[in-house]
Amino acid sequence: MKLQIAIDRVPLTKARALMKQLAPFADILEAGTSLIKDYGVTALGDLKEAVSDTQLLGDIKTIDEGAYEFRQGYRHGADLLTVMGASSVETIRKCYEVAEEYGKEMMIDLLECTPKKVEEIIQFPNAIYCLHTSVDQGATADPNGDVLTFKKAFPSVKRIAIAGGINLTTAAALSASAPEIVIVGSGITKAEDPIQVAKQFRKVMEEQCKFSM
Amino acid sequence: MKLQIAIDRVPLTKARALMKQLAPFADILEAGTSLIKDYGVTALGDLKEAVSDTQLLGDIKTIDEGAYEFRQGYRHGADLLTVMGASSVETIRKCYEVAEEYGKEMMIDLLECTPKKVEEIIQFPNAIYCLHTSVDQGATADPNGDVLTFKKAFPSVKRIAIAGGINLTTAAALSASAPEIVIVGSGITKAEDPIQVAKQFRKVMEEQCKFSM
Repeated sequence: MKLQIAIDRVPLTKARALMKQLAPFADILEAGTSLIKDYGVTALGDLKEAVSDTQLLGDIKTIDEGAYEFRQGYRHGADLLTVMGASSVETIRKCYEVAEEYGKEMMIDLLECTPKKVEEIIQFPNAIYCLHTSVDQGATADPNGDVLTFKKAFPSVKRIAIAGGINLTTAAALSASAPEIVIVGSGITKAEDPIQVAKQFRKVMEEQCKFSM
Repeated sequence: MKLQIAIDRVPLTKARALMKQLAPFADILEAGTSLIKDYGVTALGDLKEAVSDTQLLGDIKTIDEGAYEFRQGYRHGADLLTVMGASSVETIRKCYEVAEEYGKEMMIDLLECTPKKVEEIIQFPNAIYCLHTSVDQGATADPNGDVLTFKKAFPSVKRIAIAGGINLTTAAALSASAPEIVIVGSGITKAEDPIQVAKQFRKVMEEQCKFSM
């Protein structure tokens, strides 16, 4: 399992500093939607420089104008970009085509998607499908159960991420369902010592992987 | 009917210049999603200065973190902000509360919303409900018919806007359904003489209003 750390709701200079500090402990660093909405994708280049070899995800939450937004995001330094599952299939397809063209990654955010909608958009084999509980709705109570349920319902989907209030306990439990990516935001960034907590997340995720082997 | 002109996919300096030119001919000037995603809401203040007394809409397409995004948008100069109808009801409610608190306006973008979803989110009396055909899906063939159908299905909704490839012919036809706001983007901004075309839109919309009185 990969650890993705999301940075949100801080000034850009603070985000850059946090990313630089956390880069050695993350597989993916996320410029959260609040950073994108506050400063724009034109700020991504500076963040990519800060994270060096760690992958940078721009949580741009595209919902229309797929090709334009994805080109802008990749051009400015993102390795991964997000599109909403709630978009039209045409929009998702345009994002996917740009991702393939750039040889970069696309994550489909399944926030508020019905099973029917998911069924309509599972035809993108290289896409990462992100099970996501809204910040405005609170944390996911059982992320491991959510991933298991999703895998059972959509067995053709190979790449899964999960986000939404994940903590050390729920992260450890995820070994049973083994999503590709676990996304943690304020659970790390709002901690008194974010580096220490990021290390703890890596540790519980690795330990659980060993046990589940 | 009010005319909202959307500015998209241009550098910020060009957007500012266009807005300054077009402000006398628009009721609302829209900083399109591409501008928000490229430059962030922190750029809105400069645009508000350019449009002076004309209202400025930031098409931020909030889909989560409603209170944070709406506060940021209003604080930086927007008079109106957008939230996706595809968001959770909790997110829309948070946006609405912030809009009411600031005494400003909220537009709910109904892109990809099913009638069932619309039914769940029509309880916000001061919100403007925007019928929106995706850029990635092409223009609305019959905007007037779309508004009439929507009014019949949701008679309690008093404030309606319409967007998606509207041209002079379809704008003129809208007098029959009389939405509060008609949103025109590239139909004006990509014209050889945007001011001239904006005047034409105003003219057909006003003429039709007279005829329909």
